Amino acid sequence: MMRAVTQTTLGGPEVLALTEVERPEPYYGEIQVRVRAAGVNPVDPAAREIGLYIGQPPFILGWDVSGVVEKVGIGVTRFKPGDEVFGMPSFPHQAGTHAEFVTAPSRHFARKPESLSHIEAAGLPLCGLTAWQALVDNAGLSAGQTVLIHAAAGGIGHLAVQIAKSVGAHVIATASAGKHEFVRGLGADEVIDYRAVDFADVVSDVDVALTTLAGDYAERSISVLRDGGVLCQLYYSKRDAEFPEAVARGIRTDFMLVEPDLIGLQGLARLADAGELKVHVSETFPLEDFVKAHEAMEHGSATGKLVITV
Amino acid sequence: MMRAVTQTTLGGPEVLALTEVERPEPYYGEIQVRVRAAGVNPVDPAAREIGLYIGQPPFILGWDVSGVVEKVGIGVTRFKPGDEVFGMPSFPHQAGTHAEFVTAPSRHFARKPESLSHIEAAGLPLCGLTAWQALVDNAGLSAGQTVLIHAAAGGIGHLAVQIAKSVGAHVIATASAGKHEFVRGLGADEVIDYRAVDFADVVSDVDVALTTLAGDYAERSISVLRDGGVLCQLYYSKRDAEFPEAVARGIRTDFMLVEPDLIGLQGLARLADAGELKVHVSETFPLEDFVKAHEAMEHGSATGKLVITV
Repeated sequence: MMRAVTQTTLGGPEVLALTEVERPEPYYGEIQVRVRAAGVNPVDPAAREIGLYIGQPPFILGWDVSGVVEKVGIGVTRFKPGDEVFGMPSFPHQAGTHAEFVTAPSRHFARKPESLSHIEAAGLPLCGLTAWQALVDNAGLSAGQTVLIHAAAGGIGHLAVQIAKSVGAHVIATASAGKHEFVRGLGADEVIDYRAVDFADVVSDVDVALTTLAGDYAERSISVLRDGGVLCQLYYSKRDAEFPEAVARGIRTDFMLVEPDLIGLQGLARLADAGELKVHVSETFPLEDFVKAHEAMEHGSATGKLVITV
Repeated sequence: MMRAVTQTTLGGPEVLALTEVERPEPYYGEIQVRVRAAGVNPVDPAAREIGLYIGQPPFILGWDVSGVVEKVGIGVTRFKPGDEVFGMPSFPHQAGTHAEFVTAPSRHFARKPESLSHIEAAGLPLCGLTAWQALVDNAGLSAGQTVLIHAAAGGIGHLAVQIAKSVGAHVIATASAGKHEFVRGLGADEVIDYRAVDFADVVSDVDVALTTLAGDYAERSISVLRDGGVLCQLYYSKRDAEFPEAVARGIRTDFMLVEPDLIGLQGLARLADAGELKVHVSETFPLEDFVKAHEAMEHGSATGKLVITV
């Protein structure tokens, strides 16, 4: 058995409960990980409340984890019990890291970067892979290009800024004024206070834009992209054909969902161990404080990541 | 709807039937692939007959595929309809490529090597990734090392020989006499007729051994490994502690099951397009001839791969 944050109906934080459930045993090719820390992400409250992506309960939320291999399933040779790993279950239809143990295929995990604690590494998989897959895989961001990153102090944003700098891009970031020093510290070349200035008035000709935000951020970002540029949308809004300006100017407006990705995990670990990627964790919550963690994610505007510790 | 080879009970080839079933729709992050060709593997008859790895029916067998992207699920940007891909569903608990369509996460697929036909590419995922994960990931085979590959003319074996040569290893292969020319053509440096000679009498001091065979192949392979060598077992026999000689001599005796693996797929595609990896398909079967395909896999001793075409 194990303790886990479970829910049997959709709803507010009150539907969550810390209960005793069966410990998930590793199937062929899977590993069982003793959770040391697990990220909380914006998708969690939405999954809890409306079943976004995950569907109907019962389920255990939580899509990223850092921990210690407890058991290996038959046929697994990549890890042995005691190895420190970070990674994720399948997104979005499997979750389960807000618990004492989680199992997932071995190639959903890589060795934890030595330079990061479990708390820091737990902030990487979902947000780090999202940023990596958007900038590296999808946009093919390269040295000398300019990238516009919205909400650059957030969970995805603060990692995206550092990944973009690591490939040699020029980074224009948006953030509220109180977070400018933090964002500059990540390496951003220009930081715009979105409350004081409409970025669309002061930015132009960017190669890639990345947004996690609702509203008209997609349209306004398209207006500052060069012809043939790429908008990576991490908040679902409209599809390509619904952005006439993008169609007319050959701009891709890709909506992306993160996938487990060993190449990405190894890339993130390499950057972390090279000192080029730091994970900023603004607050941690013991597993018992699951309601506080959800409330902080829902109502707050955290800098960096929120992480549950187990 | 689509046609698929289905079964509702375990048993001989007579439990298989070509039926009309729902076409699997791509979930978030998944792609739907129109199957052009799908490998038949030794695991298929065992899964059909005793539910090996996969469990209880109903199910559609088939774990590797080459085909054309028909639809992409929400959030997928790596592919678009019309792209030619090869890859695999999750092994072992999902299968389903012996059908007109299959869906799986986008990162279970890579672009089909241009130099291979769909029929050839369909022979790569399960066998090629198995060989890659055994030799490259698990054993860390490197230039100048010696590797012993059993059943070197078989589905896994003939790919393993070429992968081992591509990393610069010295390859000792076993095969029946009639297949020696084929195995030498793959690049094997020494070929042993296992019927005429006990390889354990003529081989010694190898760094890595790979076997897909039952019986005492594991024990005899251990006897020819150097201290600290690696035995990659692709046929489940005993665990490490049950091989006293291996324990005494610091030899790892890893039993391995293949996993979906984008790094491996891309590696295989790179080798294929560099002309260093050829897929030998000895026989193809149209989907309707599913019984013949199973019988050929069960009773035959094919050189290279058997492939179903759709």
